[in-house]
Amino acid sequence: MLLENTIERISDLDAEAMEKARSHQKNLIKPYGSLGTLEDVAVKIAGITGEVMPQLENKAVITCAGDHGVAAQGVSVADQEVTQQMVKGFLNGGAAINVITRHTGARVTCVDMGMIKPVDDSRLVVRRVGSGTNNIAEGPAMTRDQARAAVEGGIQVAAEEIKKGTQLLATGDMGIGNTTPSTAILAAFTGFPVDQITGKGTGIDNDAMRRKAQIVQQALEINKPDARDGLDVLAKVGGFEIGGIAGVILGAAASRVPVVIDGFISGAGAMIARALAPRSVDFVLASHLSEEPGHKVMVTWLGVCPMLHMNMRLGEGTGAALSFTLIDAALKIAREMATYDEAGVSDTGLR
Amino acid sequence: MLLENTIERISDLDAEAMEKARSHQKNLIKPYGSLGTLEDVAVKIAGITGEVMPQLENKAVITCAGDHGVAAQGVSVADQEVTQQMVKGFLNGGAAINVITRHTGARVTCVDMGMIKPVDDSRLVVRRVGSGTNNIAEGPAMTRDQARAAVEGGIQVAAEEIKKGTQLLATGDMGIGNTTPSTAILAAFTGFPVDQITGKGTGIDNDAMRRKAQIVQQALEINKPDARDGLDVLAKVGGFEIGGIAGVILGAAASRVPVVIDGFISGAGAMIARALAPRSVDFVLASHLSEEPGHKVMVTWLGVCPMLHMNMRLGEGTGAALSFTLIDAALKIAREMATYDEAGVSDTGLR
Repeated sequence: MLLENTIERISDLDAEAMEKARSHQKNLIKPYGSLGTLEDVAVKIAGITGEVMPQLENKAVITCAGDHGVAAQGVSVADQEVTQQMVKGFLNGGAAINVITRHTGARVTCVDMGMIKPVDDSRLVVRRVGSGTNNIAEGPAMTRDQARAAVEGGIQVAAEEIKKGTQLLATGDMGIGNTTPSTAILAAFTGFPVDQITGKGTGIDNDAMRRKAQIVQQALEINKPDARDGLDVLAKVGGFEIGGIAGVILGAAASRVPVVIDGFISGAGAMIARALAPRSVDFVLASHLSEEPGHKVMVTWLGVCPMLHMNMRLGEGTGAALSFTLIDAALKIAREMATYDEAGVSDTGLR
Repeated sequence: MLLENTIERISDLDAEAMEKARSHQKNLIKPYGSLGTLEDVAVKIAGITGEVMPQLENKAVITCAGDHGVAAQGVSVADQEVTQQMVKGFLNGGAAINVITRHTGARVTCVDMGMIKPVDDSRLVVRRVGSGTNNIAEGPAMTRDQARAAVEGGIQVAAEEIKKGTQLLATGDMGIGNTTPSTAILAAFTGFPVDQITGKGTGIDNDAMRRKAQIVQQALEINKPDARDGLDVLAKVGGFEIGGIAGVILGAAASRVPVVIDGFISGAGAMIARALAPRSVDFVLASHLSEEPGHKVMVTWLGVCPMLHMNMRLGEGTGAALSFTLIDAALKIAREMATYDEAGVSDTGLR
C-alpha cells in the first residue's frame, strides 16, 4: 500500500506562506511582478515548504535508467547498450549531468529501474523491475504489478534522498528508445494526433520519425491504455524509468519537497504522477522546454511553465539541474533584496 | 574619431576556433546537438575569443542610467526620481541586480549617462551627456553630438572594464520612461506598427498603454528618424543610457569580448550598435525574452536567441546577469565532459 499511502499524504500548498511570500515580494525595490517567474518560483516554494524565505542548499537529481523493448523497432539512432554505458558514465562523473550538477552544487543519484543488464557498482541505486520492458508495438510494456513496483521504487528512492537531507529534488532519465513510450503516454492522456507530437529523439531522420509515429499509433491501438488510470497507462505504453520518475514526484510531493522535472521523459513521468494524484503537480517546477515537439503540449497539460528555452533534448536531468541555479536566484532575491523603506525608494505605482 | 576607430576594429568571428569547438562537441558523450543552445554558446564564444575552450571568470554587468524628457507625458507609473534612487540602491548593493550578480559571481559597474541630477558617489562611473533627454514627443531627444558622446562614453566604459581584466560583459539599464524611446527605436528600424510593439513597461494600465503608443507614433512623425543612420535614430528618439549600451556593445566587439544583452532597453541599444556596425551583433549573446511584446521582434531582427523565458521586465541587467551561470555551464561542458573514447560509449549514430 506504499503507493496509496503516499498519495494520501499529498495535501494542499500552504496558502498562508504563499500570501506572506507574495506580500514580501511587493516590498522589494522593483515593480511588483517585474521579476516574473523568479517571483512565482519563490512563492510556490513557500507554498510547498511552508517557509516564507527558505534556503534549499541540499539538492539532488535522481536519474532513472531503464531499457525499452520497442527499441527493436529502430525508433532510436543509438545502440541499446548505450543505456548501460551512459549509466557507467554518470557513475564516473564525465557525463553532461555530472558537469551541470557540479556547476549548480547538486548531487546525482543514479537508479537502475530496469536496464537490460545490471551494472555491478555500489554507487548505483538498484530498483530493477525487470530487464527492459516488452515491445509496446506488440503488447503491454509491463504488467500492472510491475508498473506499481516501478512507481513505488521511485517513491522509495525519493524518501531515501529526503532522509539524507535533500531539500530540492529533480528528475532525470536514461533509456535508449524512451521518447517513444513518452510520446505514447502523451497521446494517451491528451488525445493529440500522434504525428503532431512525435519528434526526433536523439536524432533520427524524417523517415524514421514517420515510422516512429506509426509505432506509437500501433502501441495505442493494440494496448488501449485507459487515461483515467495512471497505472494502466504506465503498464501498457510506459517504461520502468518513467514509472520511477512518477514515483519520485509523488514521494517528493508527499514530503513537501519541491521537485524539478527535466524534459520530455520526466514530463511523461509527471503525467503519470498527475493521473495518480492530481495535486502532485503543485509540488513540481518545470525547468526547460525541450526540442521534442510534444513537450509544449505536455507542459501545458501539466500546467507548469519551463524557464529555459535552449533547444535541449539530452535528458539525464540536465535541464532540471541547470535550472537549480535559477531557483537559487529566486530564493536569494526573496532573502537578500532591500525593501522600499530600507533603500529610500519611492514606491508610487510600483507595488 | 573614437566611434569610427572602434567600428574599424570590429572584425569577423574566428572560423577556425569555431570549427574546432564544433568538432570537440561532437566527441562528447551526448548526441551531437542535444545540448542545444549550450553547444551554440560554447562555439560562438570560441569564435569571439579565438580560444576553443575558454574560461571566462571575470564578469561584469555595466548598468547605464539616464532620464527621459518623455516621462512628462505620463508613460510610466513610477516617479522620475526613482532613476536616481535606484542608482543609489545599486551602489548600496540591495537591488535585484546586486543579488543576481553576487549569485553568478559578477560585478556591477553603474554608469550615470545622464540622469536629471548627478549622484555624488565615487563608486558611480560618470559619463553624463546631459541632465535627462528632451521630450521625444515634441522634438529630438538630443543633438547628434550628444548621441555620439553617449555611444563613445559606453565605448570608454567597456574599455576600462576590459582593461581591468573583464572577460565577459553584460549590459543593463535604469531610466524611468525608457521603454518609450526603446519602442520608438524598434519601430524606426523595423517599421512594425507601433500598437503591436508597445507594452506596459513597469506596469501601466491599458489606457496608459494606448496613450504611450500614440506618443511613440507622434515621436516618429515629428522626428522622422533615418533607419540607415544609427546616430540619427539615437539622437531623435533614443536616450543617453541607450547610447551608452550601444557603445558598450561596440567596445566589447572591438576587443573581442562576448557581451550579453539584457531585455528590451539593452536590445534597443544593440539595434543602434548593429546600425552603426552590423558585425557587432556577432559578439552579442541574448539572455532572456522580456515580457515587453516588442522584444520578440527585436531579438528576431538582431538574430539572437534568448535562453531564459521568465516573463522578466525589470531591466538593470538582471536577465543578463542571471544568464552568466548558463554561459559558465556551456563552457564547463566543453572543458569537463568525457569523450566517447574516454568513457567507452558507443557513438553509432550519435555524432
